[in-house]
Amino acid sequence: MIDLNADLGEGFGRWTLTDDEALLSVVTSANVACGFHAGDPSIMRRVCEQAAERGVRIGAQVSYRDLAGFGRRAMDVPPDELADEVAYQIGALEVFARAAGSKVSYVKPHGALYNRTVHDAGQAGAVVAGIRLAAGARGLPVLGLPGSLLLAAASEAGLPPVPEAFADRAYTSAGTLVPRGEPGAVLHDPDAVVARAVRMAAEGAVTPADGTAPVPVAARSLCLHGDTPGAAGLALRVREALRTAGVRVEAFA
Amino acid sequence: MIDLNADLGEGFGRWTLTDDEALLSVVTSANVACGFHAGDPSIMRRVCEQAAERGVRIGAQVSYRDLAGFGRRAMDVPPDELADEVAYQIGALEVFARAAGSKVSYVKPHGALYNRTVHDAGQAGAVVAGIRLAAGARGLPVLGLPGSLLLAAASEAGLPPVPEAFADRAYTSAGTLVPRGEPGAVLHDPDAVVARAVRMAAEGAVTPADGTAPVPVAARSLCLHGDTPGAAGLALRVREALRTAGVRVEAFA
Amino acid sequence: MIDLNADLGEGFGRWTLTDDEALLSVVTSANVACGFHAGDPSIMRRVCEQAAERGVRIGAQVSYRDLAGFGRRAMDVPPDELADEVAYQIGALEVFARAAGSKVSYVKPHGALYNRTVHDAGQAGAVVAGIRLAAGARGLPVLGLPGSLLLAAASEAGLPPVPEAFADRAYTSAGTLVPRGEPGAVLHDPDAVVARAVRMAAEGAVTPADGTAPVPVAARSLCLHGDTPGAAGLALRVREALRTAGVRVEAFA
Amino acid sequence: MIDLNADLGEGFGRWTLTDDEALLSVVTSANVACGFHAGDPSIMRRVCEQAAERGVRIGAQVSYRDLAGFGRRAMDVPPDELADEVAYQIGALEVFARAAGSKVSYVKPHGALYNRTVHDAGQAGAVVAGIRLAAGARGLPVLGLPGSLLLAAASEAGLPPVPEAFADRAYTSAGTLVPRGEPGAVLHDPDAVVARAVRMAAEGAVTPADGTAPVPVAARSLCLHGDTPGAAGLALRVREALRTAGVRVEAFA
Repeated sequence: MIDLNADLGEGFGRWTLTDDEALLSVVTSANVACGFHAGDPSIMRRVCEQAAERGVRIGAQVSYRDLAGFGRRAMDVPPDELADEVAYQIGALEVFARAAGSKVSYVKPHGALYNRTVHDAGQAGAVVAGIRLAAGARGLPVLGLPGSLLLAAASEAGLPPVPEAFADRAYTSAGTLVPRGEPGAVLHDPDAVVARAVRMAAEGAVTPADGTAPVPVAARSLCLHGDTPGAAGLALRVREALRTAGVRVEAFA
Repeated sequence: MIDLNADLGEGFGRWTLTDDEALLSVVTSANVACGFHAGDPSIMRRVCEQAAERGVRIGAQVSYRDLAGFGRRAMDVPPDELADEVAYQIGALEVFARAAGSKVSYVKPHGALYNRTVHDAGQAGAVVAGIRLAAGARGLPVLGLPGSLLLAAASEAGLPPVPEAFADRAYTSAGTLVPRGEPGAVLHDPDAVVARAVRMAAEGAVTPADGTAPVPVAARSLCLHGDTPGAAGLALRVREALRTAGVRVEAFA
Repeated sequence: MIDLNADLGEGFGRWTLTDDEALLSVVTSANVACGFHAGDPSIMRRVCEQAAERGVRIGAQVSYRDLAGFGRRAMDVPPDELADEVAYQIGALEVFARAAGSKVSYVKPHGALYNRTVHDAGQAGAVVAGIRLAAGARGLPVLGLPGSLLLAAASEAGLPPVPEAFADRAYTSAGTLVPRGEPGAVLHDPDAVVARAVRMAAEGAVTPADGTAPVPVAARSLCLHGDTPGAAGLALRVREALRTAGVRVEAFA
Repeated sequence: MIDLNADLGEGFGRWTLTDDEALLSVVTSANVACGFHAGDPSIMRRVCEQAAERGVRIGAQVSYRDLAGFGRRAMDVPPDELADEVAYQIGALEVFARAAGSKVSYVKPHGALYNRTVHDAGQAGAVVAGIRLAAGARGLPVLGLPGSLLLAAASEAGLPPVPEAFADRAYTSAGTLVPRGEPGAVLHDPDAVVARAVRMAAEGAVTPADGTAPVPVAARSLCLHGDTPGAAGLALRVREALRTAGVRVEAFA
């Protein structure tokens, strides 16, 4: 059983990026941009409506406040402010999720905030504090990298951690991601991506970049990229291959 | 019985404007800026906490998206987008109001949006649509100018209209505000402001600028300005004068 | 002899819109977005470098400050502030034009500012004042709609007015544009657009939407749209048809 | 001989921060905010006009793009983009400086960019590259911390480095600033600040926080803070004390 998630609603005003409708026909969880790195209120409303119609779960894809850098530039935001910014984004999205008859069901940090909360306890704690501020006693699951400080902080705060894997990223023999920028860090061959997705979901394992023995990948969700040409087509192939392999595609609880 | 409202939380990042703590000791309703003309997440959280502590009701002061112009420049925002922007702001504020143990209890447009929705049915309808999007069946009262299209649209949509008056603004003999920019449009004499506030609340009347017979002012709330030097002191004087005159100062239902 | 102009550099950060390189191979004048409705410093630098390499003239495409609305929402910006905002944008672009060995050679307002300065003397005057503030005694030509208050104000201030025509827009029998939103306002048939472009440039005339006698179009420049699929291909066809028809394609002086 | 510099024009729209007029009567160099952390086009124009009237030199106070954080949050901006952003800001300011009959005479990074370019060669190099992009062969002096990588990079690129000192900051016995946040890092006693300013300018020395032997301070400029209550009054006292001590207050060449 595996969840499929993708970043959606990443346009802004006149600009579009992700093929939201096509991806919503494939994924089980939609990480909706909340206006800080991308996404404007009208896009948020539309994506929430489309996700609710298809029974896709809505998650808040929270970010540093950085439209010009698409949230990809690490920022030293004081933890208190960051927590407030995270809560603000969740609250804004909640309105559109509710209006569509759904709700915000989880949180996933975007870009530089995602990368930073892997190793930075202060920023990770701030994201968790922001979720608690926004969601109160109800809490919300947190989608992130296995082994990250973010998932550890979520767990400690009583928020269910949901580890995810990337079918189009190379892994080290230690089970971590090969950093972007290193050769071979991102896989571009669709067949390879599809095969890895199936293996990750069915066997919980991936062959590392150095070709040594498979390493375990404990993922409850697979992240599919939505902002590249052909992304929706590839996502659909992954979903069908999973079905053929007998893997149930289903949102996490 | 009269409500006292003021615009609060109108700083942004390093900048401050309103003396929030002092005003929160005086008003019964706090119009909290939601980030589009002023207000950032941390300011919103603090004002909500302080308002909740003092039992002051929290309202969403929604605006056009215009930090550079402080929301004072009319913008031709298409009604669909405006409704979404209004909902976004309400949702973001709701998070901080709830976290403080309170909730968003009403909505008041700010600046150019306030002025425009007096006469512009499309923009007035968009604000009401945004409130309905955000608040669903629960609805929310709308604070505005008596006779405005905004209050008419609110009423028609089942949202309680709450008319307000301005103790420091001159009125015409028709009972409307003397436009800013005309001589004498704004009263600067504190004694006059206090006296008018009492008369508005106690008698529901005001002497117009041309000195003719008093005109009725049907106000359930008085708006006190918070962004001028001495604003908090004047607000306190108004509140005390009302008490002395036997007017109960109490939030609208 | 006719100039060809197009809006370029209208991406922002992660988002792209116009196919700048392809269009720069066709046009003689590049209207470069300056950061207020689109365009960021790196895009501005790149477009200026590419324009300079190809000998394409660089113009400042100035706008209201409105990234979320792509500068398409009319805003009541006080004329003094608008003049300053126009000057700011021109100055920022000048840096990149100079660094590329070129310079800012003209100004064209974008979107809502373009439309508004057709009829609004205050806003038109503010744009002209901003150009004078930025360009000093040197002055700069202003590209706009024939008969607009903008071109009148430019002329009066000693800035050369450059009237432009639109090959893909329907005209009334009075020689004005059929408003967008009316049926047939925009022509989508490439053959028709090409034929009109040639006629406008060669004969200075266009057949109006009501099919009555051709009306004169006094244009020194033709505006080609760059933000639609196939825009670059259509622009190239127009350029080639002009050449075949013996029209010299050349920037205005 | 010493220069006095202060950050000016750090309001934005409705918000004000620095007492620009008062400070312009004291300083010889005005670090004018350029719109990325503070400052809007109208403020920039006014400060340039006032500076030019008083013969105060105008410098570009360039920053990370971060209005919400007032440029105080370190951001991992890729060097190429940062250089372009720096150039954009300088170009925008140049327009207002020229219109006032002056010009941009130097550059000083603000806040997090200032702090980061002390130790980060990539960011320091990007600021220098941006200045060269904007100023071309003419070059521009760079105001910064003695010993910083920024001044080293400026020097290497042929841009005159101008070291500055802070009369209200504690120094270590190594001659570096005691980090903000440590006790005693900022001096609040006006008399002490004035005395240190005189000693720094007249003797080129300061007594470190640990009370050991005076350390040399090689400063061509003293930075006066403008965003605190009483800042303008303190600045005036410093200037008068310098005059009394026989120190000539004069802009750097």
